[in-house]
Amino acid sequence: MKMIIEKRILIEGLNCVSKALSTRNIIPVLNGIKFDLTKKGLYLTATDNDITIQTFIDKKDIHSIEEEGCAIIYGKTLLNTLTKLQNNNIEVENFENNEVTFKTENGGIYNFPCFNQEDFPNIVLDLQKNPLELDALKFKDIINNTSFACSLQESRPLLTGVNIKVFGNLFECVATDSYRLSKYSINLDKIIDDNINIVVPARNINEFVKLINEENIVELHIFSNKLLLKYGNLLFQTSLLNGTYPNTDNSIPKEFKYQVQANLKDFYSLLDTASSLTQSKDKNIVDLEIKDNNLIVSASSQEGKGKDKINISNKTNNNIKISFSVRYMLDALKVFKSEDILILLNGEISPIILKDIKSEELIELILPMKTY
Amino acid sequence: MKMIIEKRILIEGLNCVSKALSTRNIIPVLNGIKFDLTKKGLYLTATDNDITIQTFIDKKDIHSIEEEGCAIIYGKTLLNTLTKLQNNNIEVENFENNEVTFKTENGGIYNFPCFNQEDFPNIVLDLQKNPLELDALKFKDIINNTSFACSLQESRPLLTGVNIKVFGNLFECVATDSYRLSKYSINLDKIIDDNINIVVPARNINEFVKLINEENIVELHIFSNKLLLKYGNLLFQTSLLNGTYPNTDNSIPKEFKYQVQANLKDFYSLLDTASSLTQSKDKNIVDLEIKDNNLIVSASSQEGKGKDKINISNKTNNNIKISFSVRYMLDALKVFKSEDILILLNGEISPIILKDIKSEELIELILPMKTY
Repeated sequence: MKMIIEKRILIEGLNCVSKALSTRNIIPVLNGIKFDLTKKGLYLTATDNDITIQTFIDKKDIHSIEEEGCAIIYGKTLLNTLTKLQNNNIEVENFENNEVTFKTENGGIYNFPCFNQEDFPNIVLDLQKNPLELDALKFKDIINNTSFACSLQESRPLLTGVNIKVFGNLFECVATDSYRLSKYSINLDKIIDDNINIVVPARNINEFVKLINEENIVELHIFSNKLLLKYGNLLFQTSLLNGTYPNTDNSIPKEFKYQVQANLKDFYSLLDTASSLTQSKDKNIVDLEIKDNNLIVSASSQEGKGKDKINISNKTNNNIKISFSVRYMLDALKVFKSEDILILLNGEISPIILKDIKSEELIELILPMKTY
Repeated sequence: MKMIIEKRILIEGLNCVSKALSTRNIIPVLNGIKFDLTKKGLYLTATDNDITIQTFIDKKDIHSIEEEGCAIIYGKTLLNTLTKLQNNNIEVENFENNEVTFKTENGGIYNFPCFNQEDFPNIVLDLQKNPLELDALKFKDIINNTSFACSLQESRPLLTGVNIKVFGNLFECVATDSYRLSKYSINLDKIIDDNINIVVPARNINEFVKLINEENIVELHIFSNKLLLKYGNLLFQTSLLNGTYPNTDNSIPKEFKYQVQANLKDFYSLLDTASSLTQSKDKNIVDLEIKDNNLIVSASSQEGKGKDKINISNKTNNNIKISFSVRYMLDALKVFKSEDILILLNGEISPIILKDIKSEELIELILPMKTY
């Protein structure tokens, strides 16, 4: 392997794939990034055996490719060192298989030991002929606004994943930890023949959407046990969670006894202030009262108590008191971008539903808490 | 106690004194902020028995003072809650001694329980007639550029403090952990009659200088066992460390066999890159070689090795090799603001001295490390 490449371009590629490097991994070679230089360009690959990331730097973005070849380099140190270098162009060369040399224009020489190539997992990154295509920024928005509701507890492994379903032209993403639920549905431009119903580990899909930063297409290549996402020159493969995701369609009521329209910013601020009075994580319950055109929130703990209100538009003129986790409610409110939201209720032990006043794409559900 | 005050002004005061609240404190009342409302204005005080901070809000900055009085409120929750409130003016009132009520303009009511006033330590904040006066921003610069060199280990308690000395018109600040030393000396406008030689806990003085944010005077009121700093309406009192600080005057050589002038930014970047090859904290040694007009840095670990250079002006035309802790060297370089610095040496086992090329105010010393 021998090439001259701009530092910035190499670092961009290494940064992408480095997200698959696990610091906790006890298999040494999985701390390595695989360089594969061909006539077409440079493939960089990293894997922790759960996710695999590969990116491709086209030959037009490489100053010169003098000799094809392959090497696996300890990723973290390489990336740290290159990032700190002040130089622009870097000559990369491995004389023998056990060391790769990076030379700067000013005579700086940096050598990195290589892992044995046979130790690196042989990972298949197959593309399908007709992948599902989505707008990348929209896909990022969908994942970010659902995955936060996943469970962090491994006791019910399926709930640590995001459920992605496609039937007909409906694309639906659901996450729940069984106390709250977030659901994002959009209509696709075309009808998909085969129904899709998969559960993707939230941790992994969150890493993928962090890499999305510009207008483009995301291709979803869905296999029985894995999902391969393609975004520009980037391939991101993740395992899937096995099992049948709970059917959540019936948990969201269609009709509501109480309907309230509130200013999102005011409602958020009211709850955020109340949350500072419920410091401890487990006891973060606040009481909400709808009384004519007032929404009253009260909270109390040993360190203080508070009661404050905002004006709302009470569309059903019914009054109600309900209690819930303020942390869950704040999480749910963060997903909305409109000025006003709808708060929909059926009683003090029925789910609380939040919706945008204009769009039905995003639905947030929070179960109330009983207080005594 | 009863008053109406602008939220922003109250929070500013509470924020200042809250730095004296210890989260680890097992004496409950030390989690409280003392409100003392008089006809002159509001005194806010907090203490952890090691440092005490008091700030004063003048009556002209308070909308109305309706009733004088005193209360001690759990500081953290109060500050969190007030910070999140969207309202401007707040009415503060304690009906009885066990609760203080904060009312917003929109009808929000927040109640905080009070600590028993007799439990709060009785702290004396005496001012001297002729305190030592220094420019506040200069004082902040002096502390920030020395205290980083203090020891973090309690095994030699005195070295966890900053040594402040005044003799004649010379103000000198020294910090060392016995492996490196930072010394900042300035000339005062006038001669001080009594010599001063105190050791201030670095942790405490660092908290104080964080509160300095604008042009003003700092008054140092020095007592045998404590230091009281006055900055605007703020009083900050800290304990002193007992004992005789080591005399460091002779540790800094006056003459040097090797003198090199280097560009600060280039030298920093060279070492910073090398530091990424010496990951582990204990083994962060790099080798530096001065060879004619080149300064060569090399570093190596199991994860990679590097050798890189910059051009320098070698004023003595002597060549030398020396090894040192790259972390200490980077810390020391951060204090300089000039384009070029002087690197002064006497041999591979003698201290490395760094100076600004124009100013003698700041001197950095680093002991070399032996490598085998």
